[in-house]
Amino acid sequence: MKNSVEKRRKFLKFATLVPLALSAPALAGNKERMITDIPNGIRILFQGDSITDAGRSRGNYYANQGSGLGGGYVYQIAADILGANPGKEIVIYNRGISGNKVYQLAKRWVDDCLQLKPDVLSLLIGVNDFWHTLTHNYKGTAESFEVDLRVLVERTRTYLPNVKLIFAEPFAVAGGTAITDAWYPEFTMYQQAVSKIAGENGAVYIPLQAVFNEALKVAPVSYWCPDGVHPSIAGAYLMKQVWMEELDKL
Amino acid sequence: MKNSVEKRRKFLKFATLVPLALSAPALAGNKERMITDIPNGIRILFQGDSITDAGRSRGNYYANQGSGLGGGYVYQIAADILGANPGKEIVIYNRGISGNKVYQLAKRWVDDCLQLKPDVLSLLIGVNDFWHTLTHNYKGTAESFEVDLRVLVERTRTYLPNVKLIFAEPFAVAGGTAITDAWYPEFTMYQQAVSKIAGENGAVYIPLQAVFNEALKVAPVSYWCPDGVHPSIAGAYLMKQVWMEELDKL
Repeated sequence: MKNSVEKRRKFLKFATLVPLALSAPALAGNKERMITDIPNGIRILFQGDSITDAGRSRGNYYANQGSGLGGGYVYQIAADILGANPGKEIVIYNRGISGNKVYQLAKRWVDDCLQLKPDVLSLLIGVNDFWHTLTHNYKGTAESFEVDLRVLVERTRTYLPNVKLIFAEPFAVAGGTAITDAWYPEFTMYQQAVSKIAGENGAVYIPLQAVFNEALKVAPVSYWCPDGVHPSIAGAYLMKQVWMEELDKL
Repeated sequence: MKNSVEKRRKFLKFATLVPLALSAPALAGNKERMITDIPNGIRILFQGDSITDAGRSRGNYYANQGSGLGGGYVYQIAADILGANPGKEIVIYNRGISGNKVYQLAKRWVDDCLQLKPDVLSLLIGVNDFWHTLTHNYKGTAESFEVDLRVLVERTRTYLPNVKLIFAEPFAVAGGTAITDAWYPEFTMYQQAVSKIAGENGAVYIPLQAVFNEALKVAPVSYWCPDGVHPSIAGAYLMKQVWMEELDKL
C-alpha cells in the first residue's frame, strides 16, 4: 500500500495542459478541449463546513458520487476533474459538515480524513469559529482556533506524512446579509491564523477574500454570496476556478 | 416587453471567446480565463425528465439557485455561464421532472415553459416514453411520442415565436444496468423522432448517443452512466461540454 502511494507521489505534477483524447463525432471540428494532467489514482479530500458541505447527501459517502459531493465548489471541481480525466481512477471525497468549527473537525478526523488516506487534503475552515461567537455564544477565540488548527495539521502530517495540503482562506463578503461591523477586525485574525499555519506547513494557500473582493467590482454581493458566507453557484464557480489554478502549485 | 425581447434577439450571438474582465490579485499571472460571449438578460430554460431534474429542490423554483438547478448537466452549464458572466442579468431555470414523458410536459407547459418566456429552450425528453412501456405498462408508442412532441413544439413556437430551440437526443448507454436487448431497435425510433422534429424546426440537435458511445472507448459505462439512463457527475460533464459547444450554433 505504502509503495503504491509512494509511486503515485512521483507523478504528482499537475495542470500541464494536454489535449483530451476523448473525441465524439458530435465534437469533431469543435474547439480542442483541454484537461488537467492529473496523476492516475490520486485521492483528493475536501474538508470544512457548510461552504464545503453545500447540501451533500451525507449518507452517500462513496467517492465521486454527484449527490455526495454537494452543490458547491467541491461538486464543480469534481465535475471538471472527473469529466476530463476518464480512466484514471481518481477518487474525490467531500466530508464538509455544516456548522463545523475546527474542534469539530478534530473529533471526526480519523473517520473523515485519516482513514481516507488522501494524497491531497483541501481544507476550508474558520468562519464558524468566529461567526458562532456572535450567534451561538461560542467561547472560542482566534488564539484557540490557531492552536487547534495547528494541532490538527500536525496530527494529519504525522499520519499522512506525504499529504499535499491546500488551505482555502475563510472569507466574509462585505455587504452580505450576515456580515456586520462586529466581524471586523476580529475575523481577520482567523484569516491570519490560517495563512500563518499554511506557511508553516508549505501548504498551497488560496486567498479567497481577495477573490471575492475583486468579484464585487463586477457584480453585487447578492450575485456571488448573498449572506456573505455561503457562495451562490456563481461564487462557487469563482472558488473552483482559483482552486484549479492553484492546484499546479502543489 | 416584446420590444426588449426583440432587442435582445439582435445580440443572440454566442460563444465568441473573450478574456474575462474579472481578475483578482489571486489570479494575477495565471492563465487567461475564457468566457462565452453570451448576451445580456438572456433567459434559458431546461426542460425534461430525471436527467434534467437531477434531484433539484423543486420548491426552490427561482432562477439561478444552486439547489433549484439540481445536480446534473443543468447545474454544470449554469455554473459555467453564471460564473463567467457576472453583471449580465442572465436567467437560468431548470424545470425537469423525474419520470416525465412528453405528454406530462404538455400538461404543465403553461406554468413550466410559456410563462417563463425563455429566449432559449433546451429540451431532453423521450427515454421514459420508451422505458415505461417496459417497466410501467405505459401504452405510448414511438408514433404517439412523435405526434405529441411535434404538437408541443408547435404550441411553443406559437406562443414564443422567437424562441431558440436546443433538442438533446435521448440516449441509452449500452451496458448500463437498466438497458436490455428489449430496448433495440424500438428505442432508436424515439431518437429518430426527436431528430426529425429538431430538423423540422431548425433546432440545434445534440447527438448525445454518439457522445456516450465514444466515451465508452475511454472508460466503462459505470463511470459515465451506471444504469445507462442517468449520467454520473462525469457523464453530466460530457453533456455540459457538448451543450456549451453547440450553443454557438443557435
